[in-house]
Amino acid sequence: MQILKSSKCFDGEVRFYEHDSLTTKAKMRFSVFLPLQATPPASCMIWLSGLTCTEENFMLKAGAQKYLADKNIMLICPDTSPRGLNLPHEHEEDDFGSGAGFYLSATTPAYRDHYDMYNYINHELYDLIIDKFMRSTAPKISICGHSMGGHGALVIGLKNPDKYYKISAFSPIVNPSQCPWGQKAFTGYLGNDIEEWKKWDATELIKSGCQHPRQIVIEQGTADPFFEKQLLTANFAEACKDYEQNLQVNYHAGYDHSYWFIASFIGQHIW
Amino acid sequence: MQILKSSKCFDGEVRFYEHDSLTTKAKMRFSVFLPLQATPPASCMIWLSGLTCTEENFMLKAGAQKYLADKNIMLICPDTSPRGLNLPHEHEEDDFGSGAGFYLSATTPAYRDHYDMYNYINHELYDLIIDKFMRSTAPKISICGHSMGGHGALVIGLKNPDKYYKISAFSPIVNPSQCPWGQKAFTGYLGNDIEEWKKWDATELIKSGCQHPRQIVIEQGTADPFFEKQLLTANFAEACKDYEQNLQVNYHAGYDHSYWFIASFIGQHIW
Repeated sequence: MQILKSSKCFDGEVRFYEHDSLTTKAKMRFSVFLPLQATPPASCMIWLSGLTCTEENFMLKAGAQKYLADKNIMLICPDTSPRGLNLPHEHEEDDFGSGAGFYLSATTPAYRDHYDMYNYINHELYDLIIDKFMRSTAPKISICGHSMGGHGALVIGLKNPDKYYKISAFSPIVNPSQCPWGQKAFTGYLGNDIEEWKKWDATELIKSGCQHPRQIVIEQGTADPFFEKQLLTANFAEACKDYEQNLQVNYHAGYDHSYWFIASFIGQHIW
Repeated sequence: MQILKSSKCFDGEVRFYEHDSLTTKAKMRFSVFLPLQATPPASCMIWLSGLTCTEENFMLKAGAQKYLADKNIMLICPDTSPRGLNLPHEHEEDDFGSGAGFYLSATTPAYRDHYDMYNYINHELYDLIIDKFMRSTAPKISICGHSMGGHGALVIGLKNPDKYYKISAFSPIVNPSQCPWGQKAFTGYLGNDIEEWKKWDATELIKSGCQHPRQIVIEQGTADPFFEKQLLTANFAEACKDYEQNLQVNYHAGYDHSYWFIASFIGQHIW
């Protein structure tokens, strides 16, 4: 595991890492913010970014370090897909392949050997956080993300409620089986069996009985251009209501899908 | 004047503008953050960015909006040079020409018609801030910047102490006549007459009797790779001491030249 660059920030340190992942069999990058280097952090936020992003976007643009430093919480931002590969159609479009891993375990022949972002985050990176950065026997790890990364946070968190202290999301894709982004990605990564898709769809997971013991929190801007066709917030809210999952959706008038929105409310997602 | 894009942020708005400048006779861009749209802001921070930056960097990376929103202070970030031109050697290197205007009034034949960033900031943009955004008869406008922009803030502020409430800078080039970046830029923009250079050198301005009535504040990281050869902080500190300009230099152990450093301390520069 190699540190590519590091900088002091809010008395802590921002670091960018590269490593060879056993899960994705590819080079993977992630960034971390470590508050006050002398003490191991009390808890950790895993942030999953959206389409086209890398391990850098959230670290650079969200302004989260101030809040993290104040509370001695570390942050880890994985990249959004394996890199350095050349799979069929991998680099052709923004919403599939590189930069668009969708945090699932691909099953199609072209992608199954490398695109296992689910196990990369939930096992390999999760264990690495505890071993390398937290040194705690009772780690408190939360998961949050934006758009495609919001989908990832909901799905990973709901599938593993014991591993994540809190689940939250900004402008998440909550019902990918029913929106163009999700349908395209799921077809490419999972094939045409709709039953397979349901395993990676937060709304369907709730309907199948998945639960998280704490309130899930979603922030959603009403001026988000993807709100109606891609994000489908209401579908998740309805499922949570029907299946008694505690959920808080905060709608914000006039806010869009950008990091300007995330920066405005990220301080409320540092648990 | 055209709004290229805008987003709600911390209850206010981030906007990116383009306009035809009368001063530089070129298209110019700048970004603004306007806190709570209903009330005109109480004061304004002009931020001048460093080499290679545009009107976007500080707005995206510094995390200043939270502090600005809390205090109802607007922010304006001009680009670092005119754009859309094709002057001799203008686009060849990172430290001269486009992205490297050095906030002066060029006198060399190749550059004097367009590279007048000094008058663009100090007159055209300054007046535009008051007319369009502040609507105040007693505007409180401060000037701050980073690296080349720190040089710009010191020079513009010291030449016009009545127009700027406070001058401050992160990692500024304080004595450009004596460092490689400054010598290269000044030769290209001002020619070979060293006496001309002194008019655009903060340390020389202090020695020539320029003063600002309030304390000037500089933040400087000790792990900054440009500290010794390019920034020459001590030269300015010595001149301020000799000429009784109130100056506070805060040295920060371990911090480098990046926006991670700026973000860590920008909250203390919102006056």
